Amino acid sequence: MAPVPTDSTSTAALRANGVHSKEKVAIIGSGNWGSAIARIAGMNVKRLSGQFEPEVTMWVKEEEVDGRPLTEIINEKHENVKYLAGINIGGNVRAEPDLKKALKGATGIVVVLPHQFLNSVLEEMKGHVEEGARAVTLIKGVDVHDGKISTFASLISKELGISCSALSGANIANEVAADKYSESTLGVPSSEAHNGNVDDHPEAKLWKPLFETPTFRIQVVEDVDGVSLCGALKNVVAMAAGFVDGLGWGDNSKGAGTSHRTAAIMRIGMLEIHDFCLEFFPGTKSTTFLVESCGVADIMTSCMGGRNRRVAMEMVKTKKSFQELEKELLNGQKLQGALTALEVHQFLDAQGVGNIKRKNKYPLFENVWNICFNGIAPEKITENL
Amino acid sequence: MAPVPTDSTSTAALRANGVHSKEKVAIIGSGNWGSAIARIAGMNVKRLSGQFEPEVTMWVKEEEVDGRPLTEIINEKHENVKYLAGINIGGNVRAEPDLKKALKGATGIVVVLPHQFLNSVLEEMKGHVEEGARAVTLIKGVDVHDGKISTFASLISKELGISCSALSGANIANEVAADKYSESTLGVPSSEAHNGNVDDHPEAKLWKPLFETPTFRIQVVEDVDGVSLCGALKNVVAMAAGFVDGLGWGDNSKGAGTSHRTAAIMRIGMLEIHDFCLEFFPGTKSTTFLVESCGVADIMTSCMGGRNRRVAMEMVKTKKSFQELEKELLNGQKLQGALTALEVHQFLDAQGVGNIKRKNKYPLFENVWNICFNGIAPEKITENL
Repeated sequence: MAPVPTDSTSTAALRANGVHSKEKVAIIGSGNWGSAIARIAGMNVKRLSGQFEPEVTMWVKEEEVDGRPLTEIINEKHENVKYLAGINIGGNVRAEPDLKKALKGATGIVVVLPHQFLNSVLEEMKGHVEEGARAVTLIKGVDVHDGKISTFASLISKELGISCSALSGANIANEVAADKYSESTLGVPSSEAHNGNVDDHPEAKLWKPLFETPTFRIQVVEDVDGVSLCGALKNVVAMAAGFVDGLGWGDNSKGAGTSHRTAAIMRIGMLEIHDFCLEFFPGTKSTTFLVESCGVADIMTSCMGGRNRRVAMEMVKTKKSFQELEKELLNGQKLQGALTALEVHQFLDAQGVGNIKRKNKYPLFENVWNICFNGIAPEKITENL
Repeated sequence: MAPVPTDSTSTAALRANGVHSKEKVAIIGSGNWGSAIARIAGMNVKRLSGQFEPEVTMWVKEEEVDGRPLTEIINEKHENVKYLAGINIGGNVRAEPDLKKALKGATGIVVVLPHQFLNSVLEEMKGHVEEGARAVTLIKGVDVHDGKISTFASLISKELGISCSALSGANIANEVAADKYSESTLGVPSSEAHNGNVDDHPEAKLWKPLFETPTFRIQVVEDVDGVSLCGALKNVVAMAAGFVDGLGWGDNSKGAGTSHRTAAIMRIGMLEIHDFCLEFFPGTKSTTFLVESCGVADIMTSCMGGRNRRVAMEMVKTKKSFQELEKELLNGQKLQGALTALEVHQFLDAQGVGNIKRKNKYPLFENVWNICFNGIAPEKITENL
């Protein structure tokens, strides 16, 4: 029997020293997806009482709702009335407005913030993360600075000095919260610490049991970068699909389902994501893109629905720029697909000698960039494919 | 300069003896897809006059239309008024009601028949195919007899004693005929006769120039079986997607695009096709299923539209059997997805010892079979996945 940890010996420090103790989970973020995943984590820690402490802490950036603090409402009603209304997230998910308190003793840190807040929250977290704690990010997108692309997982890992996995897939909060069947991919760092069965990976043994349910299926891959990059790059492909559909090549209006042109765009887009990641992120794996939920399935769903496709369609129909449509349709929020197309273009440009040849390898990405930023007609979307 | 062949020396025989001469193309079949592909072949033989004879012969099973023979109408109007109305198929596509005359001198034989007529037409063709001729099949589906699955390409090859490739992809006749952008995959037999560039494969050098246009893109793979099997097995997956959509898990009605549940079904279905083919057809290649138009793209489009999905949806909504719906919705035509699910089940059963374990490897295929033939509720479609 492992000794019960005392107050002066944190569970994380004990675990880091090879002493078995229970995992204590903190969710950093409480939006739509954060609340949905907190509900699942709450159910799983209760079910797996040998592995996890019975309570999940959810850090909530405090705000007033109907004149009361949101944390108070959540802890009374067990419902995030603002971001996941109508869903009971369970009595063992405790909303906590103080970030430091939320992190205290936490050995498993789930980061699920709007990406624009990540840097400032990471600054606040520094020095308050338990030794030996581990993180997983559910944030989609990548960070681009000075012609370098880095994933949020690597940013979290670097800033906090702990390992970080990534969860991404063809799923949305409201469907997961309603226990509708869907899937997700858990990318974990490469490790020798398993015998060929990636479910035995040390990070997989923490995160998979925490997230998986009979209707929310998790597949594990040893590829944090691939899982993260897919979640960003698919938005560029979704815009390409939107241009095609907006041009009426889609035939969806006639009830004929996906057009074969849209299918071609999705397929070519998936291959550009695949080739781009394998060229510039050498640890990434083909199957992450071609086989996993975060790859082929998420690309498909993003090409068939969602805001990137919708704005691209509207660009064709209204002849407006994506910047105008951001204001009209997205309340001024940035359109991820256009932003990522620009970042990818700048990244390819920054690769120096041979960049023209490199860009020619990614004609769909470049076409989306040209249509968004250089006034090229959407009809050109299939050019050079 | 190669000698011009005389009447007594067939072009095929000359080519077989290494003498360069022009390819003469015959299209065997003149339905919707046959007429669309004849139009493309007609344009390409004209454009590539160094490689091809200038006329394409299209064998038409003669029938009366408005009191006149269909071949006469086609040759006068250059339009197949019955099966591809409104499209000019070109003045150099000649309709021919006599199968033997159509085959005379033909070195490239394009087989594009309804599959139920294939056996009888092959019987008629025997003894009338030029030595050294080559074939390609555009028929989707496979042939199952006595627990053995064989592709139409292997059947054609065996019956006629010539090599046979296969063309299949996410495309439909009317879109291709209207020059809408789409793709297809050409599967050619394995060969040493190229230096790693599959476009230099001897069969690819015949069929790709004949079929490709700026808006109909052809990718070549050395995998006839994989290309053929995909075109059959995708129909089983399309039924699974139809059950999911029929159960209202799809949310398509709300304009939200593909549901994440449907995406999961497509992804799992693609992997079952992949695993099934790699297990039982050892020459098949992963990428055929995961990367090519005949694989991932055709699976997607079939899951989003088409008759298999539609009948499966109606099974859920109306509680009728697929046999009843075949009568009501398909004029009594057989539903390919159900038929193939049965054939796959029987095939797995016939594998003898270990078949239970084998069937467990293909739960989606088995669930479709159980729902179609054993009265199992469509709600069970995600069971054991």
